[in-house]
Amino acid sequence: MPTPITQLEHARAGSITPEMEFVAKRENLTPEKIREEVATGKMVIPANRVHLEGKLEPMCIGSAAVCKVNANIGNSAVTSDEEGELEKLHTAVHYGADTVMDLSTGNDIDTIRKSIIEASTVPIGTVPIYQMLEELGGEIEEMRPQHFLDMVEHQAKQGVDYMTVHCGVKYEHLHLTMDRVTGIVSRGGSLIAKWMMTHQKQNPLYDAFDDLCDIMRQYDVTWSLGDGLRPGSLADASDDAQFAELDVLGELTARGQERGTQVMVEGPGHIPMDQIKMNVDRQIEVCNGAPFYLLGPLVTDFAPGYDHITSCIGASIAGWAGAAMLCYVTPKEHLGLPEREDVKQGLIAYKIAAHSADIARQRPGARDVDDALSRARFAFDWNEQFRLALDPETAKAYHDETLPQETFKSAHFCSMCGPKYCSMKITEDIREMAAKGELVALSELEAKTS
Amino acid sequence: MPTPITQLEHARAGSITPEMEFVAKRENLTPEKIREEVATGKMVIPANRVHLEGKLEPMCIGSAAVCKVNANIGNSAVTSDEEGELEKLHTAVHYGADTVMDLSTGNDIDTIRKSIIEASTVPIGTVPIYQMLEELGGEIEEMRPQHFLDMVEHQAKQGVDYMTVHCGVKYEHLHLTMDRVTGIVSRGGSLIAKWMMTHQKQNPLYDAFDDLCDIMRQYDVTWSLGDGLRPGSLADASDDAQFAELDVLGELTARGQERGTQVMVEGPGHIPMDQIKMNVDRQIEVCNGAPFYLLGPLVTDFAPGYDHITSCIGASIAGWAGAAMLCYVTPKEHLGLPEREDVKQGLIAYKIAAHSADIARQRPGARDVDDALSRARFAFDWNEQFRLALDPETAKAYHDETLPQETFKSAHFCSMCGPKYCSMKITEDIREMAAKGELVALSELEAKTS
Repeated sequence: MPTPITQLEHARAGSITPEMEFVAKRENLTPEKIREEVATGKMVIPANRVHLEGKLEPMCIGSAAVCKVNANIGNSAVTSDEEGELEKLHTAVHYGADTVMDLSTGNDIDTIRKSIIEASTVPIGTVPIYQMLEELGGEIEEMRPQHFLDMVEHQAKQGVDYMTVHCGVKYEHLHLTMDRVTGIVSRGGSLIAKWMMTHQKQNPLYDAFDDLCDIMRQYDVTWSLGDGLRPGSLADASDDAQFAELDVLGELTARGQERGTQVMVEGPGHIPMDQIKMNVDRQIEVCNGAPFYLLGPLVTDFAPGYDHITSCIGASIAGWAGAAMLCYVTPKEHLGLPEREDVKQGLIAYKIAAHSADIARQRPGARDVDDALSRARFAFDWNEQFRLALDPETAKAYHDETLPQETFKSAHFCSMCGPKYCSMKITEDIREMAAKGELVALSELEAKTS
Repeated sequence: MPTPITQLEHARAGSITPEMEFVAKRENLTPEKIREEVATGKMVIPANRVHLEGKLEPMCIGSAAVCKVNANIGNSAVTSDEEGELEKLHTAVHYGADTVMDLSTGNDIDTIRKSIIEASTVPIGTVPIYQMLEELGGEIEEMRPQHFLDMVEHQAKQGVDYMTVHCGVKYEHLHLTMDRVTGIVSRGGSLIAKWMMTHQKQNPLYDAFDDLCDIMRQYDVTWSLGDGLRPGSLADASDDAQFAELDVLGELTARGQERGTQVMVEGPGHIPMDQIKMNVDRQIEVCNGAPFYLLGPLVTDFAPGYDHITSCIGASIAGWAGAAMLCYVTPKEHLGLPEREDVKQGLIAYKIAAHSADIARQRPGARDVDDALSRARFAFDWNEQFRLALDPETAKAYHDETLPQETFKSAHFCSMCGPKYCSMKITEDIREMAAKGELVALSELEAKTS
């Protein structure tokens, strides 16, 4: 057995790392429980050794832990710069992103990523094929396996904590996508598919999987096995292409873990509500419980401009079914690059999804904040309601639109019902009457009225 | 058997009314199927005979039909007027409200309702106790049963199509609410409870149920049996008070139907995801399949300002489980009276919920618009995507933020990924290559590479 490097290797060797101690406190679980989950591959702690020397505060992803949320940021060739991306990072972390992916595909990718990793307390994920393609001048056909290995090593050295690699897209499954309504919608997946078609060769990232493991193990970069053939529409959900790739991802999960690397697995995408639990169950079975990281899923395709909502529904159900991390979708999905306000709206929706999932899974303590807010609501303690709210500024602003004066912060009503129709105010009256003995037993009532 | 007046009575007598014909076309069901569903009480057609003489376009509510959405409008003592309420009505109908409830509790209730009924093509619902209370000067203790009967008759004459009445709140169940975190959160329910406490008598609306049926039957006003003891927080969900009232509602459903009136039943409110299906199943069983009309439910209490989203998750799951109509919640819920933009945001969220539910229930044709939009997306037909979108203006505005020029309406990319990274563009390339025979069989590939 080689000297342990990764969290997985340490866990298997029976040691509890400082990172495991740290996440145990955050999760209110025992360090031994964390070690066990990591050792069995059911939990990952994405913490590049380089980023650990910086500002990273370790966190874990796995169904034994609280459901996590990822926010994607990054520029495109059409818009945004370093300053804009740092602002998005801060917005994302402020609104509770547990990890952030830098998906930049435009200018200055290296500069932007360096700044993001330096500034970030949360793990940073990337999709290395994007920067590699930039360096090849946009011609995916030019890619040689070594280009990709070099880029993974370069980004690992920079401190990237987890990487999406589309190793699971195989040549023999491409024909399964030809009759799809929306084809291949993963950027990485479509690039790899095009390379395979051009060269009539198997996926070089699949072939280089063990070499990639060796690089990632050295820095403890966590795999995020990309789902390059995920459905891009309800019409393509749960089809043969998707599940053919899932089987490959199951094989790669086991191989990656054997080689000491931590592995999580990405999932769709666009799925009607009635197929979500089946999808989560199937991934958990095929990938032996490796953390499942879903991109949504959207439960309808008919509401562009509101896909943070259409996907929040799916994400909630997925989290409830056991997904370990939910990748947010912003209102701009399918329409344009998200800006700061979109990042906020996406995160709010996904914090709601993850939290609702924790409640539905009946995680101990998950409902505490809800109950505290409900008690403040019943007590007409408006300031406490705002304080406990997911987005205090917005809650306060909405309340203050009609009743801005400080005196209304203890008023026993709001403008929704007005003073006479506040049911909670009336309940107070009722309880006072009951306390004075005015709620008599039914038998007594019947005796009176008969 | 008396001469049939209501849709229910006609259906039972075997006749297909013009209203049944009309809704059959809207639902793409046979008139006989509609008649059957109405006859068994599993579907209602809320169509007051007075409103039918006006602009009403009949619709139906029942789990055999498409899932419906209601929007609440109405002023409060604190804010809004007739013009504002008519604007909200138009906004609601524009964004797809299937019914609208006028919950006014402020000034000029009669004028506002008259205008709303005159202007409305969709059924209008009310909660008559509000206006009655206004006429009593706000003192619920003053109410006599005749006050309430008179008000129901007054509103029935005006053309109100369905009415929420809290007949199910019984004296003997009040003690079950005393230890709740948020007590009684239904306005009508709390008013009735206070009346019962003051007079130490049974609910006069329960006692007057048969008389109320006689009035409602004359105009064919549909019952919306109010859930006065619905939970107002996750902490109170699925408790004894809620289910004690549900049993009463089951009894009243049968009684109302026996007396010839159409009946639907309201439901909660605040429920964690894992209890929603159980709640819907239980209502369907207890109320013998009468249409279930849910208020949300919110699946978490921690996000005031975003309760259109927290409740949209619950509403989607409820609709999937068989709820027939979903009462929207706006972003202002718990904070203030909704304005025009809030009405829009609430409706968008609930159209998403109802549509996602129809898809998950695999209703024939439910996914057609999704598939058409996905095909337009894959074809880079941006204008067609906007046209098919739930909210075309918003979708177009988001797209145009970064790429406003008309030439980009047929561009094979958007600003999210930019031209080089558009997976759908790359898929097009792949399909062209495949069409040229460049996707060879795996065996051929293996022969080549070995």
